[in-house]
Amino acid sequence: MSRRKKKLLWLLLAAILLPTTAMANGASEAFTRTTLLLIVMITLADLCGFLFERLGMAEILGEIYAGIVLGNLALVGIDWNVSELLRDSEFMAYSSELALVLLLFLVGLESDISSLLRVGKNAAMVAVGGVVLPIVLGVGASAALGFATGLEGWFVGAMLAATSVGITAKVLGENGLVKTPSAQVILGAAVIDDVLGILLLAVLASVVVSGEVAPLDLVWIIAKALLFFVGALLIGRRLMPAMVHVVSLSKHSSFWTGFALCLALSFAQIAAFAGLAPLIGAFVAGLILDDMDFRVGDALQKHKLEELVQPISDIMITIFFVGIGAMVQLEALLNPQILLIILVLTTVAVISKGSVGFIVRGSGYDRLGIGYGMIPRGEVGLVFAAFAAANGVFCGETYTALVMVVLLTTVIGPLLLKPRLAYF
Amino acid sequence: MSRRKKKLLWLLLAAILLPTTAMANGASEAFTRTTLLLIVMITLADLCGFLFERLGMAEILGEIYAGIVLGNLALVGIDWNVSELLRDSEFMAYSSELALVLLLFLVGLESDISSLLRVGKNAAMVAVGGVVLPIVLGVGASAALGFATGLEGWFVGAMLAATSVGITAKVLGENGLVKTPSAQVILGAAVIDDVLGILLLAVLASVVVSGEVAPLDLVWIIAKALLFFVGALLIGRRLMPAMVHVVSLSKHSSFWTGFALCLALSFAQIAAFAGLAPLIGAFVAGLILDDMDFRVGDALQKHKLEELVQPISDIMITIFFVGIGAMVQLEALLNPQILLIILVLTTVAVISKGSVGFIVRGSGYDRLGIGYGMIPRGEVGLVFAAFAAANGVFCGETYTALVMVVLLTTVIGPLLLKPRLAYF
Repeated sequence: MSRRKKKLLWLLLAAILLPTTAMANGASEAFTRTTLLLIVMITLADLCGFLFERLGMAEILGEIYAGIVLGNLALVGIDWNVSELLRDSEFMAYSSELALVLLLFLVGLESDISSLLRVGKNAAMVAVGGVVLPIVLGVGASAALGFATGLEGWFVGAMLAATSVGITAKVLGENGLVKTPSAQVILGAAVIDDVLGILLLAVLASVVVSGEVAPLDLVWIIAKALLFFVGALLIGRRLMPAMVHVVSLSKHSSFWTGFALCLALSFAQIAAFAGLAPLIGAFVAGLILDDMDFRVGDALQKHKLEELVQPISDIMITIFFVGIGAMVQLEALLNPQILLIILVLTTVAVISKGSVGFIVRGSGYDRLGIGYGMIPRGEVGLVFAAFAAANGVFCGETYTALVMVVLLTTVIGPLLLKPRLAYF
Repeated sequence: MSRRKKKLLWLLLAAILLPTTAMANGASEAFTRTTLLLIVMITLADLCGFLFERLGMAEILGEIYAGIVLGNLALVGIDWNVSELLRDSEFMAYSSELALVLLLFLVGLESDISSLLRVGKNAAMVAVGGVVLPIVLGVGASAALGFATGLEGWFVGAMLAATSVGITAKVLGENGLVKTPSAQVILGAAVIDDVLGILLLAVLASVVVSGEVAPLDLVWIIAKALLFFVGALLIGRRLMPAMVHVVSLSKHSSFWTGFALCLALSFAQIAAFAGLAPLIGAFVAGLILDDMDFRVGDALQKHKLEELVQPISDIMITIFFVGIGAMVQLEALLNPQILLIILVLTTVAVISKGSVGFIVRGSGYDRLGIGYGMIPRGEVGLVFAAFAAANGVFCGETYTALVMVVLLTTVIGPLLLKPRLAYF
């Protein structure tokens, strides 16, 4: 048979096959939709991550890039709205949240409380500086550009003040640098920043809703956050050894996987009840478990625990980063006015957080690296933007611009951080 | 402070705290709902699994039992409809499907094609016997009881003929028995059974819809299934070494996790397109990869691959088994007529599949164990029941009874199989 005839035969076969396979009853439609999306997302993210790493950039930048490509397929005429599919899929949404919880749990396992407390003062200064500076510069820039004044300007500033530690934690963890003093400053500052962030949101939200600040609410927020940290430490230290002992009774590794997941989720949920971000709770869970572990005296099990959580976290984290990338709408960059706002605010975002490391005192820190590690805003910033948009503080264009700024910081952060890792 | 005063103080604190925490803005409502469900499911399943194992029963029985408890909380006055939450949650539904895909992928990794072909004849006989016997006995029992005659009786028989290999595969894998000849007969028979199952469903479905059997459709179904197996083997053998080589270039374990997941999902999806059950496709993916692995000559990587998929599969499998258990509605057992149908059909289900191992020829097989391994019907049987109910073939009571029969087989199967494992 000639080559051409063979080709025709294949085409004929495909023409018969395709319509029938579309009626396949072997799997539900929902299974097919999610499965195809997962395959494409993970494959493209892994390939891009691999290529970016070869080019000397952080792997996760490649994953975010894969998301940007998948989220903007419409620009090249492909009618497959990935960002909408991701937003509408409960599986993808929950997996993304689970990703951050597990990631910070793993980072917590690697950190320990004493070394975190040792850098406590520096972390607190970085956190406060990293909130004040972006607000001042953000409010100023918004007023100067004239696109956001008054309350709107404050929201812009608050958005720029929110740190999201997930991206930096991933870069640090990948390179085995979680235990360095600089990394501990970043992690400590992120925990404090989260408390400052909810305080800020509470102040602005009450101004939006009632027109004034309720001091009692603020006291209550601080009390709840403190209650969480103190309660988690006390209960954790009391109950953890007993729980680890019970789990040790089983020889199945699935038991350990389940325990780790439940522990991370429980602390995440308790933190959420206290008004904090779930990932902060998971970080504390990892911290406590790490500390307890030495009491129980079974270092092998801890090593195993990390190995058992890692694969779940790896897959979920990929879903999270591709999802972040898919939210980037490249079309927005075509509007010159929006582009200007994005450029200015991104510059403000990068400089205001990037310089905050110089507040740190003492030797043995990489001040530039600490600042770069604080740059990514991620989901906390997006919560601010979503609240402001939902309450009519932001117009549609400002919202689009600010989402782009947040996303750009998630790209610029690891881009700047990677070359600094050698100094950590 | 006295003990009583302390207690009052705590109660007061709780009274202030609870209403406020309900308004927590740290996490979305969907996150909280799914997280709490996951924590309860995994904790209870692990505890029950541990207890059941201590009592000498299969661990997964404990997980199914945990599901039965959670699904029937209403009976003890707790207003938390877990079975409804599980059914409505896309995350839980997809995780359950993913569970079977990953489980069979892992089983495929442990099996190899040559030893599967060696037991091919026996597997085929077990598969055919395990379809004919349940149909004959099922149709007979339905007619004798007088609750399902004609087409309805045939659907009852077909439901009892569908094997679901997931539960048995989990028990065999846990005990490291996948490579035994008896286990290979069960796995081979399950693959053939799946093809026979879709043929049966196609025949019955076309009788329901058009009143007659379309022979061309059946030929097409067989052709598609064969095309899948041949295509998967050919393409797999050609492309797999190159793909494994590409993946080996990355030093990140997350790359391997992503590769394994995508491979299992891709084959599951292709199988679904061919009209087969997704888990059969994943099994074939594991088979091919196992075979290829020896060519690439990197046994370490294969070992690693299993370790990287195991934790994801462990969590998802727990969700799957708890979900199966949660579907059991204990109230149905209070109706004496339904109870009779359930008892008779469950007996038929157990005997008709449980005795099928005696068809096997040659030595070195545990005939009783093979039969017991074929008993669980699982999701394939439920697909039959759902189709019949949706098309008005089954009335509500018959449907409830048959779902219970399917679920009971998933409990009885491992219960009988566990003591036989010593003879495998």
